[in-house]
Amino acid sequence: MFGKKKVKPLKIGLVGLGKIAVDQHIPSIRANPALELVAGCSPNARPDGVTAYDSLEDMLAAHPEIEAVAICTPPQIRHKIARQVIAAGKHVFLEKPPAATLGEAEAIADLARAKGVTVLASWHSRYAPAVETTREWIAGRKIKSIHVVWKENVRQWHPGQKWIFEAGGMGVFDPGINSLSILTRIVPEKVIVKKADLHIPVNCEAPIQVEMDLTTESGVAIRADYDFLQTGIQTWSIFVESEKGEKLELSMGGTGLSIDGKEIMKEKEAEYPGLYAHFEKLVRASQSDADFSPLRIVADAMLLGKRIDAPEYIE
Amino acid sequence: MFGKKKVKPLKIGLVGLGKIAVDQHIPSIRANPALELVAGCSPNARPDGVTAYDSLEDMLAAHPEIEAVAICTPPQIRHKIARQVIAAGKHVFLEKPPAATLGEAEAIADLARAKGVTVLASWHSRYAPAVETTREWIAGRKIKSIHVVWKENVRQWHPGQKWIFEAGGMGVFDPGINSLSILTRIVPEKVIVKKADLHIPVNCEAPIQVEMDLTTESGVAIRADYDFLQTGIQTWSIFVESEKGEKLELSMGGTGLSIDGKEIMKEKEAEYPGLYAHFEKLVRASQSDADFSPLRIVADAMLLGKRIDAPEYIE
Repeated sequence: MFGKKKVKPLKIGLVGLGKIAVDQHIPSIRANPALELVAGCSPNARPDGVTAYDSLEDMLAAHPEIEAVAICTPPQIRHKIARQVIAAGKHVFLEKPPAATLGEAEAIADLARAKGVTVLASWHSRYAPAVETTREWIAGRKIKSIHVVWKENVRQWHPGQKWIFEAGGMGVFDPGINSLSILTRIVPEKVIVKKADLHIPVNCEAPIQVEMDLTTESGVAIRADYDFLQTGIQTWSIFVESEKGEKLELSMGGTGLSIDGKEIMKEKEAEYPGLYAHFEKLVRASQSDADFSPLRIVADAMLLGKRIDAPEYIE
Repeated sequence: MFGKKKVKPLKIGLVGLGKIAVDQHIPSIRANPALELVAGCSPNARPDGVTAYDSLEDMLAAHPEIEAVAICTPPQIRHKIARQVIAAGKHVFLEKPPAATLGEAEAIADLARAKGVTVLASWHSRYAPAVETTREWIAGRKIKSIHVVWKENVRQWHPGQKWIFEAGGMGVFDPGINSLSILTRIVPEKVIVKKADLHIPVNCEAPIQVEMDLTTESGVAIRADYDFLQTGIQTWSIFVESEKGEKLELSMGGTGLSIDGKEIMKEKEAEYPGLYAHFEKLVRASQSDADFSPLRIVADAMLLGKRIDAPEYIE
């Protein structure tokens, strides 16, 4: 009688059973006793041990007990699926980016609000281990400048992802939006794009390299350099300098942290368990987390960016 | 004792004294007895009969009685000026588009909210005479489809406006955003971009021609065709068809209206007086009107649009 009240686990269905579902979503849900993976759906993928259906309709019909749905499809179809999920009265977990456009993302948030269900626009990089420490470090200081350096080899990390260079595929912003999700978390003010150089291969439609100047409302200068053709050392770092000259480096996508050259943290990546814990809390509290600012920054960069021809890209 | 209480006119200062200020803002303010034009500022323009200063600082220092400022500069510097105006505790009237990016526009709205001043993101085409009648017509019907046709000759209407084809200049979306401001007013739901073909001259950075597919949340198909090289008949029309086959045409940028081929309205353009009456009401009610959806649609079109080479453009 005096024991802790046992809460039934939140019953989850997955839409899309590809690489990100298998690598991250399925193990993260299974590792969290407050969650239960009921089933998944995909037109073809059949991962081991998951009750799988051909379509969302089939999955929901077979499992009316599903309370929440995580959408792990490509972004182009997320809006359509989210509409069906919300119409069925289920909570929604959106992989990043939340939708193909800001308009779609806002429409999903509006629908969820109207139906009274939770929506999480997830940004996995915000759950990297050193992000919160960096946020607190910045909060305690006057900041002089920030430099984002996100340089990776598209051939190594995105083989066969042809859509990434198509219209709407975002190009180097596909990984780059992760850095923007961290940036908009660690900086307490709004981040505004002032200038962007978009290098677009002559045979592609999305940028392969980008240099951006941004600023905060109070005038902190932010520079961001993205390169999708980086060979040798790969870099996913954010450098912050305070007005007193203190220097912080958040490295390896948020798993490493050094301050004034001294290593403070070097941990294994563990983002999705944190994301799912956040989602479960939101649902229990009947709240949503629908921050679209990283996508807004990419849209603004595409709106005012200068397009520069880059050499042909051949995978 | 029983007479109407006389309200002192709202004291207005202008930033930017170019063509739009002279043609529209100055006469509209002067024609409205609830408003008073105190002064203006510009680095060089000196329109007749306006007390003018070189800078915003000089104008505000000389006229601390100014209560509201209308910003009629090019969009690239509106954010910076709006920050100063809001910091001085004045209400803000923003010409369209409200800023160069969504991030800047949202930052202005945030600042105004924090300071407790009114901000109006003005969209003059929404005050065209036939827009409200169109909105009511749509509200009373099930709509099948909408077609926006905005075709004008850039050489005739925008001579010397070189910036329009530069990065961030928006190209044909500079006039096209007017159609989007009408569309987002007459359609009761959110409007979402699904596809855009952006024809960009090989020597320019902004589109000269655009075809877009859009949709409303409930699935009404919207097509939008923009052409900046239209010779002969110029077209600024929105065609609406109901599910019952009724047809409405809002023409000439919102001054003409016909339903099922019958002319209902054909009026002279008178947008800015309506805009200023709206602004005065907002200030008196301590409210703001900061709808950025037309700019969001352009940003989304640039985010997912397919870029197509168009022939060189020579003014």
